Amino acid sequence: MNEFDIIQHFCSFQTIKRSDVILGSGDDCAIITVPPTQQVAITMDTLIAGVHFPLNTSAYDIGYKSLAVNLSDLAAMGAEPAWVTFALTAPHIEKSWLEELACGFFNLATAYNVQLIGGDLTRGPLSITLQAQGLITKGKALTRSGAKVGDLIYVSGTLGDAALALEYLQKSINIKLSNREYLLTKLNRPQPQVNLAKKLQGIATAAIDISDGLAADLSHILEKSQVGAIVDIQQLPLSPALRESVSLEKAIYLALNGGDDYELCFTIPPSQKALLETILAEENTPAYCIGQVTHSMHLALEFNGTPYKGLIHGYQHF
Amino acid sequence: MNEFDIIQHFCSFQTIKRSDVILGSGDDCAIITVPPTQQVAITMDTLIAGVHFPLNTSAYDIGYKSLAVNLSDLAAMGAEPAWVTFALTAPHIEKSWLEELACGFFNLATAYNVQLIGGDLTRGPLSITLQAQGLITKGKALTRSGAKVGDLIYVSGTLGDAALALEYLQKSINIKLSNREYLLTKLNRPQPQVNLAKKLQGIATAAIDISDGLAADLSHILEKSQVGAIVDIQQLPLSPALRESVSLEKAIYLALNGGDDYELCFTIPPSQKALLETILAEENTPAYCIGQVTHSMHLALEFNGTPYKGLIHGYQHF
Repeated sequence: MNEFDIIQHFCSFQTIKRSDVILGSGDDCAIITVPPTQQVAITMDTLIAGVHFPLNTSAYDIGYKSLAVNLSDLAAMGAEPAWVTFALTAPHIEKSWLEELACGFFNLATAYNVQLIGGDLTRGPLSITLQAQGLITKGKALTRSGAKVGDLIYVSGTLGDAALALEYLQKSINIKLSNREYLLTKLNRPQPQVNLAKKLQGIATAAIDISDGLAADLSHILEKSQVGAIVDIQQLPLSPALRESVSLEKAIYLALNGGDDYELCFTIPPSQKALLETILAEENTPAYCIGQVTHSMHLALEFNGTPYKGLIHGYQHF
Repeated sequence: MNEFDIIQHFCSFQTIKRSDVILGSGDDCAIITVPPTQQVAITMDTLIAGVHFPLNTSAYDIGYKSLAVNLSDLAAMGAEPAWVTFALTAPHIEKSWLEELACGFFNLATAYNVQLIGGDLTRGPLSITLQAQGLITKGKALTRSGAKVGDLIYVSGTLGDAALALEYLQKSINIKLSNREYLLTKLNRPQPQVNLAKKLQGIATAAIDISDGLAADLSHILEKSQVGAIVDIQQLPLSPALRESVSLEKAIYLALNGGDDYELCFTIPPSQKALLETILAEENTPAYCIGQVTHSMHLALEFNGTPYKGLIHGYQHF
């Protein structure tokens, strides 16, 4: 297959056709139209083979995850996903690999009504850069900078599972068979919290997606909001699979520092707690209060009412 | 420098601050606002070291060119450049290299009032993926699909210079000293035809930027417009530097097939010729009529009134 055949074959897996896409792929640019009440949220993420996913990751999971991590960034702003561009660099492309990649990518795109509107295909070491764009009502974006002293801190889902799965794939830890599928799915097919996040508009004061570990990402909220926080380690949501696989200390370490969770961390005023609980029930999505915003200007961890000394580092990309 | 220091230092070179950027880099997404009369044009291009630029290219030129090729795609739609996101993958980053990269990138960004609103930084083999976005009045985009039988075909600037410079860098050809700087500048610092293109709205019936060679890119217009063309080889704009460096046959070959020109190829109805000439004079930008659109459904080349047999291939990315 030559370049144009590859692009055409990949795009043939697309089913979504949005009315706001005036011109999709196949020209020098795509052209989109934005409703006057809306703003555009834009995010970009690169996944490098061997860095952001193990070299033997299936093409389906690479396609899925490359979009999922970008949708997770849109979710962190409370945006409605809309369009995506896709730059694929690969040393060579086999048809069956391309088809798997397309299935993983477009299955998730279809689930969130996201249309692929362009991209680029180049020869080189395997990597994918995606830019995803979403719509958000003017002035309603959930930023990192709005957390207020006294706000409650929540995280969705469970933490540390993806980091544990990565350690398993890197053969530094064993996991019993009955927990493997759950944990590997958390690593390879994270569920971006798009639907929950949209309902947090007007309720949450700040939000971020947890991609580099809770401690690092919560710290971004604290820094941008010029506040501190106290987190109760005992409230960290740990999955049974995580608890069964490692010591409590290690589980806490992974929950605080492990990358690739793609869960939401957000803050709400205590007055919104009841409303949040209604939303969580409607969305059938768990989220847990893990602490509170303080004016201390740093992140304090407590366990049983005493300071917790566990190591915090967060994922360092460089 | 760690990841955040690198990003912060790179961004410190930015001078443009657009009022339509509600939130720039530093959150999960950027947020932009679009005037109700406008649509958004979106393009994405990846540059791989050793493929899209020689390994010893200066960081300044890498930064400049990565933006220039994307602005050239916006120009091909007649769009006004506005925002850009920048994904940098590098094996390691030295401060002086980063600063040169930033200077090349932001000097061009400043010239076109483009604001960097986000991106990603990852460790891996050197490559850059940019997504650039521009504004265009609703319904005014210059697409590839509007060429009509009888339209005149124009190209801006001169063709083949960048391909010749690349052959020189690859040591497959020698160039005399007095021509080197001109040719290397054409390769490393192409001028996106943004200003000319904006004035072609309502005049040009189709447009494309010439990145893969005139023959290949004009063929995209013909295919999308369901027409053919006749091109007079003797009208191809060849620079004195190109003519002095190689045989006429080789110069024509490079003009038809060489990549990296980033000039505009566009079609206009004959009735718009006088208006186009006024615009070209105002913009002080040369453009040359090289042929005419036909209903033959293929691209015919003529030299002195007889068919031209020169090889055509276009740049193959895969």
